[in-house]
Amino acid sequence: MSENILFSDRDVEFLLYEVLGLDKLCQYPGFSEHSRESFDMLLSGTRRFARQKLLASHSIIDQDPPYLKNGKVIVPALMTEMVKAIIDMDFIAASRPESVGGIDLPISVYTMATCYLMAANCSASGYTGLTLGAAHLIEKFGTEELRERYMKPMYEGRWLGTMALTEPHAGSSLGDIRTSAKLQDAGHYLIAGSKIFISGGDHDICENIVHMVLGRIDGAPEGSAGVSLFVVPKLRMDEGALVDNDVSVAGLIHKIGWKGMPSLAMNYGDEGACHGYLIGPAGRGLYCMFQMMNEARIMVGANGVSTAAVAYQESLNYAKERPQGRALGSKGGPQINIVEHADVRRMLLRQKAIVEGGLSVVIATAKYSDIAAKSEDEGERAHAQLLLDLLTPIAKSFPAEKGYESNTLALQIHGGYGYSSEYKPECWLREQKLNSIHEGTTGIQSLDLLGRKVMSQGGTAMMALAEIVQGAIKRSAACGHTSWATELGQAMQTVGKTTQALGVLGMSGDPAAMLRHSVDYLDMFSTLTVAWQLLERASVAKEALDGGSDEKAFYEGKIHTAEYWFASEVPRISLLAAICQKNDSSYTSMDVESF
Amino acid sequence: MSENILFSDRDVEFLLYEVLGLDKLCQYPGFSEHSRESFDMLLSGTRRFARQKLLASHSIIDQDPPYLKNGKVIVPALMTEMVKAIIDMDFIAASRPESVGGIDLPISVYTMATCYLMAANCSASGYTGLTLGAAHLIEKFGTEELRERYMKPMYEGRWLGTMALTEPHAGSSLGDIRTSAKLQDAGHYLIAGSKIFISGGDHDICENIVHMVLGRIDGAPEGSAGVSLFVVPKLRMDEGALVDNDVSVAGLIHKIGWKGMPSLAMNYGDEGACHGYLIGPAGRGLYCMFQMMNEARIMVGANGVSTAAVAYQESLNYAKERPQGRALGSKGGPQINIVEHADVRRMLLRQKAIVEGGLSVVIATAKYSDIAAKSEDEGERAHAQLLLDLLTPIAKSFPAEKGYESNTLALQIHGGYGYSSEYKPECWLREQKLNSIHEGTTGIQSLDLLGRKVMSQGGTAMMALAEIVQGAIKRSAACGHTSWATELGQAMQTVGKTTQALGVLGMSGDPAAMLRHSVDYLDMFSTLTVAWQLLERASVAKEALDGGSDEKAFYEGKIHTAEYWFASEVPRISLLAAICQKNDSSYTSMDVESF
Repeated sequence: MSENILFSDRDVEFLLYEVLGLDKLCQYPGFSEHSRESFDMLLSGTRRFARQKLLASHSIIDQDPPYLKNGKVIVPALMTEMVKAIIDMDFIAASRPESVGGIDLPISVYTMATCYLMAANCSASGYTGLTLGAAHLIEKFGTEELRERYMKPMYEGRWLGTMALTEPHAGSSLGDIRTSAKLQDAGHYLIAGSKIFISGGDHDICENIVHMVLGRIDGAPEGSAGVSLFVVPKLRMDEGALVDNDVSVAGLIHKIGWKGMPSLAMNYGDEGACHGYLIGPAGRGLYCMFQMMNEARIMVGANGVSTAAVAYQESLNYAKERPQGRALGSKGGPQINIVEHADVRRMLLRQKAIVEGGLSVVIATAKYSDIAAKSEDEGERAHAQLLLDLLTPIAKSFPAEKGYESNTLALQIHGGYGYSSEYKPECWLREQKLNSIHEGTTGIQSLDLLGRKVMSQGGTAMMALAEIVQGAIKRSAACGHTSWATELGQAMQTVGKTTQALGVLGMSGDPAAMLRHSVDYLDMFSTLTVAWQLLERASVAKEALDGGSDEKAFYEGKIHTAEYWFASEVPRISLLAAICQKNDSSYTSMDVESF
Repeated sequence: MSENILFSDRDVEFLLYEVLGLDKLCQYPGFSEHSRESFDMLLSGTRRFARQKLLASHSIIDQDPPYLKNGKVIVPALMTEMVKAIIDMDFIAASRPESVGGIDLPISVYTMATCYLMAANCSASGYTGLTLGAAHLIEKFGTEELRERYMKPMYEGRWLGTMALTEPHAGSSLGDIRTSAKLQDAGHYLIAGSKIFISGGDHDICENIVHMVLGRIDGAPEGSAGVSLFVVPKLRMDEGALVDNDVSVAGLIHKIGWKGMPSLAMNYGDEGACHGYLIGPAGRGLYCMFQMMNEARIMVGANGVSTAAVAYQESLNYAKERPQGRALGSKGGPQINIVEHADVRRMLLRQKAIVEGGLSVVIATAKYSDIAAKSEDEGERAHAQLLLDLLTPIAKSFPAEKGYESNTLALQIHGGYGYSSEYKPECWLREQKLNSIHEGTTGIQSLDLLGRKVMSQGGTAMMALAEIVQGAIKRSAACGHTSWATELGQAMQTVGKTTQALGVLGMSGDPAAMLRHSVDYLDMFSTLTVAWQLLERASVAKEALDGGSDEKAFYEGKIHTAEYWFASEVPRISLLAAICQKNDSSYTSMDVESF
């Protein structure tokens, strides 16, 4: 079968430069060292490695994953090789400033490069992604000493990092964690507690692992306000030597995907000798974590898109090469390839719309984070921050939810073969399922969007989005896509009115009613957001065709993708708006015994 | 955690007797030996075994499945024990006439009993289910000699059966199979060919396996008209002794679920010594198979419902017992169980609606097969047959598609735990995925419904359904559910008009346009069918409450389930109707290179 290209290079080029104009980010002083050429150099190196090496490792590691032996996790040599190859590309710190060893790459470009790694092998990319997140916490909230001692080797990839938040009884409800921290005379804390679902919590890829641990300082108040954040290394520096820090593996969880990166139950301080170092103010652990959470959520969205993308390419190749059946009404002659069957095409175009629309949302959101970080204009920074905050729950959850549907379609196109582990789609389907759970479930994202983001500052973020969407509508109408322009305008109004109606409910003292259909609201909002992005893609494509481009098939594909979304998904916006506003209370008013 | 009950006994009793009145089937002479008591005896024996023994075997066998050794499949002792226990309940032939060893149990009751087995362990139930299907083919189309020699030991469970249709290049397109059959002077055929995805094609549960093989007699025409059906035993009777019949295992496919029943690549006649016995007329193999296919499709639907049901019960138990978070606006105090959170309740009620609605459709469809088989009134038989044919693609595909969504929600409710194989929902999710593929994919079901069933005999079946739905609407209005009654009436009209519009398209010579949105049409039709069934359940419940029943929580649960479906799903009917009628051609008109 044809090679799986993960993402179409042409589509990535189209998105980054023709649609989002990421090269213009180089006008900001913070990115002035960069140019389209430097972006492309990083992207082409990453994609070459992802296609030529990393993808081939994926099935092998899924079937022969890291395992526990004598209380330590042993990682297969192939995985170690892959992770080290990513490190050797100086990938971990690339988006960080030069002062800490990075090259100040825009997050948007970095996210796109990461997508290639994630599409090829999400576990391998997970080790370095977690390390970036953990090191970034130390960079932002740690003392100079901690930065030198821990952040530096992490950004260099000599040590890897991990996040230790969840406890067996406290997942979504992090304010309930119980891990304790006792201040010692020497200034460090003694940490004691158990954590669960710690990805990469132990391994033998490198000599040391740095855990970012949420704990509760003795005497701290109950709930979220008593939670603090600690750096807890596997090996700590003691009189110039690395010594064991009493961090141990309690068990390995058998995840159904992401098998290349072990998920562990961990014990800290079983023997009373686990040192932790406070970062950020005491009691501000969740605040510090949430500074990073938005980045992590965009990365989850990127992973959702990538996992859907590799499966889309796989099923597209399969459909083009698998003969089965004949055209309607035709009985004899050779079989045709299944890409000719209408329903297979429906499944392919649906995947394409989810992948391309999802990628647009993720990279556009990351672009706002670049502007929010690097613009010299305070107003522009604030505006970008508003849109970043608003779009983050969409960028996180749309690829997770619709990407899962997309991965399911990729399996379905493979028929009986898709139901076997001899073919790859089932593995990507398993991997995708995590994305609706980790870094805040879809339910949590919906509460964040409706309960917080759209309502904050009197709806300023919504107004900012509406203005941008209005621009996209005008451009679309100008290039002749008048009916889509009208439909998107109506949809934007519908979403605005629904938001107002729910806001009134909330302010009238019934927040439970306001939030009852938050997942329907999230679905509606996501459908609108993707419609906006697909419309923008179609406008750019139409302008190119009108300008005489000879890339007819490519650009027409963008227009057909918008056509599909406007025909099949945009009508769902008014449906979901009606559901939110009608506010059916069947499930909330029901007695538990009635289930 | 609480015991998983698979299905609520009270709901099954409600469905069978209060809603569908299956006890009235005993008025037909063919079922006159039966009564509600005999039905309940079978049901209670089956559910007791399913809950107390079979369910416990499920995870064990999933993790330690049958394997290939020296070209033979070895089945773990626990699975052999389970299959033999089902056989020992005289289960295989229970729905067949006494003349062949059965007890003439209505298919509807038999299907319900099978649901308990499927919910507990679909693979175990698969061995006996396939045997019934294969033996039934011999019963219907075989000679007296073949019935005596093969059907009899199969119905008794001494030998098991299997279906061998698919070849590596011919799955959905069965007319393209190549397995050959050469007539010998002695009257039998020599079979030669390779098959794939043969469930239970080899095992050591019993001494012999009888394969129903599709093949092509030398000189037969190309395509479907050249396909014949053969009985091909693993061991054939030769001069009074069982001898090897040259049936061999070519490989074992690593399915992602149903692991307890091996799926095999098989070779027939590698050494030129594989005897097959023609059943039914030469060239009528597909016709014979399709006589059985409708039964098999209802059983796939039953499996979809059962796989969703066991996961629903699991997530309901989990939600009632897992503390996490607090009520909106409340910060202190102990955590509440997640069943109190609105979005968890949404996921639970959605599952409940899919499971109860799906079960209603499956058992109601099976009831039509009972009437079509046993009524003495020719008109009633014809009427039931029409409805059976019309509803079969719905009964097959709705539980497969929405059941998969339901299983996904069960996993999501379990959070990070759901993503591990330490918990059970992920296994049921894997098992469910097969149901949209085998016995005709969802795409094939949609073509069957729209291209054949609704259009046949000038739409007679649709009219028959509309009349019955009209009855349900009246009953619903009479008990006070007036708005749902109105909405279902409008939905029925919408479906009728959409069908007409598509029929006109087809008759105007554009069948491709008629069928372009067949899956949307199937979705629309299924949503209507389930709405009808859930409304009927709500009417019965309302009448019971109005009649003074003290089972308040139970009956109110039925009403809330309808409330949910009418609020969230019924509005999709007009949406999907508009999509079908607008007939967007984005995916069919697109150049292959544009994907």
